[in-house]
Amino acid sequence: MEKVEIVLNSLPMSGGDGPNSYSKNSHLQRKTTSLLKETIDKLILEKLDAKTLISGSNTFRIADLGCATGPNTFFLVDDIIKSVETSLRKSNSSKPEFLVYFNDLPENDFNTLFTSLPQDTSYLAVGVPGSFYGRVIPRSSVHIVVTVGATHWLSSVPKEVLDKRSKAWNKGKVHYSNAAKEVVKAYERQFGRDMGKFLEVRAKELVSGGLLVVGMCGIPKGMPFSNLADSVMYTSMAEVLIQMQSQGLITEEQADTFNIPIYSASPEEVTFLVETNGCFTVESMELMNPAAWLKRAVNVEDVRQWMICIKATMGSLFINHFGDHILDVFFDRLTEKLVGLTEKIESSYREKLMLFFALKRK
Amino acid sequence: MEKVEIVLNSLPMSGGDGPNSYSKNSHLQRKTTSLLKETIDKLILEKLDAKTLISGSNTFRIADLGCATGPNTFFLVDDIIKSVETSLRKSNSSKPEFLVYFNDLPENDFNTLFTSLPQDTSYLAVGVPGSFYGRVIPRSSVHIVVTVGATHWLSSVPKEVLDKRSKAWNKGKVHYSNAAKEVVKAYERQFGRDMGKFLEVRAKELVSGGLLVVGMCGIPKGMPFSNLADSVMYTSMAEVLIQMQSQGLITEEQADTFNIPIYSASPEEVTFLVETNGCFTVESMELMNPAAWLKRAVNVEDVRQWMICIKATMGSLFINHFGDHILDVFFDRLTEKLVGLTEKIESSYREKLMLFFALKRK
Repeated sequence: MEKVEIVLNSLPMSGGDGPNSYSKNSHLQRKTTSLLKETIDKLILEKLDAKTLISGSNTFRIADLGCATGPNTFFLVDDIIKSVETSLRKSNSSKPEFLVYFNDLPENDFNTLFTSLPQDTSYLAVGVPGSFYGRVIPRSSVHIVVTVGATHWLSSVPKEVLDKRSKAWNKGKVHYSNAAKEVVKAYERQFGRDMGKFLEVRAKELVSGGLLVVGMCGIPKGMPFSNLADSVMYTSMAEVLIQMQSQGLITEEQADTFNIPIYSASPEEVTFLVETNGCFTVESMELMNPAAWLKRAVNVEDVRQWMICIKATMGSLFINHFGDHILDVFFDRLTEKLVGLTEKIESSYREKLMLFFALKRK
Repeated sequence: MEKVEIVLNSLPMSGGDGPNSYSKNSHLQRKTTSLLKETIDKLILEKLDAKTLISGSNTFRIADLGCATGPNTFFLVDDIIKSVETSLRKSNSSKPEFLVYFNDLPENDFNTLFTSLPQDTSYLAVGVPGSFYGRVIPRSSVHIVVTVGATHWLSSVPKEVLDKRSKAWNKGKVHYSNAAKEVVKAYERQFGRDMGKFLEVRAKELVSGGLLVVGMCGIPKGMPFSNLADSVMYTSMAEVLIQMQSQGLITEEQADTFNIPIYSASPEEVTFLVETNGCFTVESMELMNPAAWLKRAVNVEDVRQWMICIKATMGSLFINHFGDHILDVFFDRLTEKLVGLTEKIESSYREKLMLFFALKRK
């Protein structure tokens, strides 16, 4: 089996099902998944020849990459299976068995995922530990690969950003938002390598005619990241860290080497990467509106809920870098800071920020 | 997908990798696995047409049912893969990809399993949560199913044994050893149903020509269980429970309703079940000597080590029934009792107590 060498950030969503867990604090992600339901349904009915794909084995295989601990992954998978069943009914096919690969990093809390699997699933469920920037599924075996809210996570922070001698050294910031152009370029190149690898390995895993469906952080081509609400958050994060450093809660070294490996891609740059890869046709490539609250006036409660979700999603990144004793202090201060910035958040660009694309394996 | 209704005991091995964990206390099981290595290697080379099986997909699929948390499952799987590779080299076949299904109950500690997966595996690994008395793998898709030390666990304690009005009511005992013949019969019937179901679902999952390899607790036909060292243990367990009940540490109800759902099968009864099923040919069916220490003089340290393994293996059964506060007390008392019975253990029948069988899917 081909092995891929990558430096991985250990970034599982917060495990368990306690008050700070991802499984209890992923309603924003749930909204995203719901938004995609109709789009994915249409894609499956119009672009997927399910009948031909299952001829032979009569097993239909689906993978959710970056599934976390549930429950969103179960809703997503259920929706996909219903669409495939509708498609098969229309073509008078016999009902296949469904196998679902739930994939995430080995550090993900698969115990919570498995024990919260619905009792009456209509599919066989397996968990696949491993980075989706490497091979995780047998070759030419999967019919639909879906990943929502995961591929904006880079495989690692770009090396240059951590190198004091580099122009891309990102001291005093936690992201490429508002950063030097060398930092932006370093993130962009890292995304290019990661998404390039992602497409390369998925091309090996998908059967010919299979679909790769992706929802991730997006941005219109040419728009500076600083226009976005997330930019307000990243700037505030850096400010909180500097404050905590000045109080001796964290070291300067810790603060300077902390960067969040998240990248928002434009449709144009993903299209370029897909064309370079050459194994897929583009069936859909669009920027969509993300979770509903961003469309309307932002209130204090919205900000608090947002931060609870961010803490469940990014918490382990902070814990791995700073230790777990700073997590609550950091997020309490961050939340208070952002609560004072609702107007700035509200006036940020908040529309087409989810990049959705669907590719068909040639 | 066909769903199977069974009442399951939640019986994961002790999770994590702490001092009481299964992963740290499964060396007796490791010895069993080592003993089987040569036998399994020979089977694969002589009875499996690996070249024909992989034609088409070039993916070779292996399942370990009841894998627990490792590391024994990794050794076992490695050995199997090496044998298959040898077989394929001999027939000048191209190297396939290997997919390994690691199966256990959903309550098993898959997090420990996944994070302790060797870094340099030559296979894609997936975890499959679910009882192996139901379907866990897509139909006609797996080439070798192996299960060591798991199928002597019944899907549940036989109902009659828990029924006060039944002749099989097993008051004052924890097992069918030395019990009324109705109790023995109830366990025997339960094993027949469970193994019947096991063979039925495996027949659906294995490809034609695929192998089902099982190592489990066995016993020569007609031998009373009371001849065995395990019988000394079960009798002592019952005595400790009665003592704890008299001291008010557990209730009479708790003591009377506790039974260990483990059954030792003879080659003859498994052969009968395989013939009844009709989907397999018997390639091997034999009683082997189990773990090495049972062959020689038994000393106090042997007994202590044995009990540490039993605690890691059966601990959750006690915790589920009595609560976790009694676990240490119970096993401390049990160990002390058995330490005083080394001669009795030594004079027990200790030879052909592992039933090994290999079946080929027609």
